[in-house]
Amino acid sequence: MQVSSIGVIKSPYKKREDAPKQGIDSKEISTIVLYDQRILERIKNREYLLVLYWMHLSDRKVLWSESKGRGVFATRSPERPNPIAISVVKVVGIKGSKIKVKYLDAVDDTPIMDLRSHLLYPQVQ
Amino acid sequence: MQVSSIGVIKSPYKKREDAPKQGIDSKEISTIVLYDQRILERIKNREYLLVLYWMHLSDRKVLWSESKGRGVFATRSPERPNPIAISVVKVVGIKGSKIKVKYLDAVDDTPIMDLRSHLLYPQVQ
Repeated sequence: MQVSSIGVIKSPYKKREDAPKQGIDSKEISTIVLYDQRILERIKNREYLLVLYWMHLSDRKVLWSESKGRGVFATRSPERPNPIAISVVKVVGIKGSKIKVKYLDAVDDTPIMDLRSHLLYPQVQ
Repeated sequence: MQVSSIGVIKSPYKKREDAPKQGIDSKEISTIVLYDQRILERIKNREYLLVLYWMHLSDRKVLWSESKGRGVFATRSPERPNPIAISVVKVVGIKGSKIKVKYLDAVDDTPIMDLRSHLLYPQVQ
C-alpha cells in the first residue's frame, strides 16, 4: 500500500533528540504546510485536530524493543514496521495553506499523511 | 512511502454498510490475524490496543465531502487520500498469532498496519 504525503511539518525540533517524547509535552509552535489549500476548508482556529505523520527517521526493521524487553507492538516506540505517529494538536493560526499548531512532537520536515477532526481529549486543555 | 501489512482483520462485517460508523458501537468480536507471532510478545488479555488499519474499500480521490459541505480533513470520513483508520480495541483472547478483540468496526479482510499499547479512553469501559 502506497501512502501519499499531503504536506510537511516545519518544526523547531531539528533532530530526534530535540523533540519531546509526547506531543502534549511540546511547548513550541510548529507549522503544518499543506500542498493543497482547498483541503483546509472549514478547519477553524482553536480547533483540535488529529495529525497522522510519518516518522521518516525511524528504523522500520525493529520488531523487538531491547530497552522494554517486549515486541514493538506492545510499546509506543517510533521504531516499528509502519512508523505512523498520531498527535492531537491545537490550531493557533491559519494563513493560506499553513496551519500553526501546538502540541506537536515531530521533527522538522516530517511528512504528513492525514489531518482529521478530533473530539477533545480530557487531558488537553 | 510504502506501508506494509502486518496482518489482516477477520470480521463478521462483510460489507461496508454492515459495519457501525464507530468501533465503540460494535458489539461483535473480530479476529486480528498477525503474520508474525513474535510481535505479539507481552500483549495481554483484557488490554486495550490502538489498531491502525487501511480502509481498503475507500475512494482515495475524494477531497471534498458533499454531505458535510467541507474538505475531508475537516471530517472523519473514510474517503480521504490516506484511508487510515484508528480504533481502540479490547483484547478478549489470544491464541498463537490470533487476537480476538472487541470494538472494531473494520470490514472483513482489512489490512492492519500497526498495533500499539494504549492508555484507556474514559469512554471505553
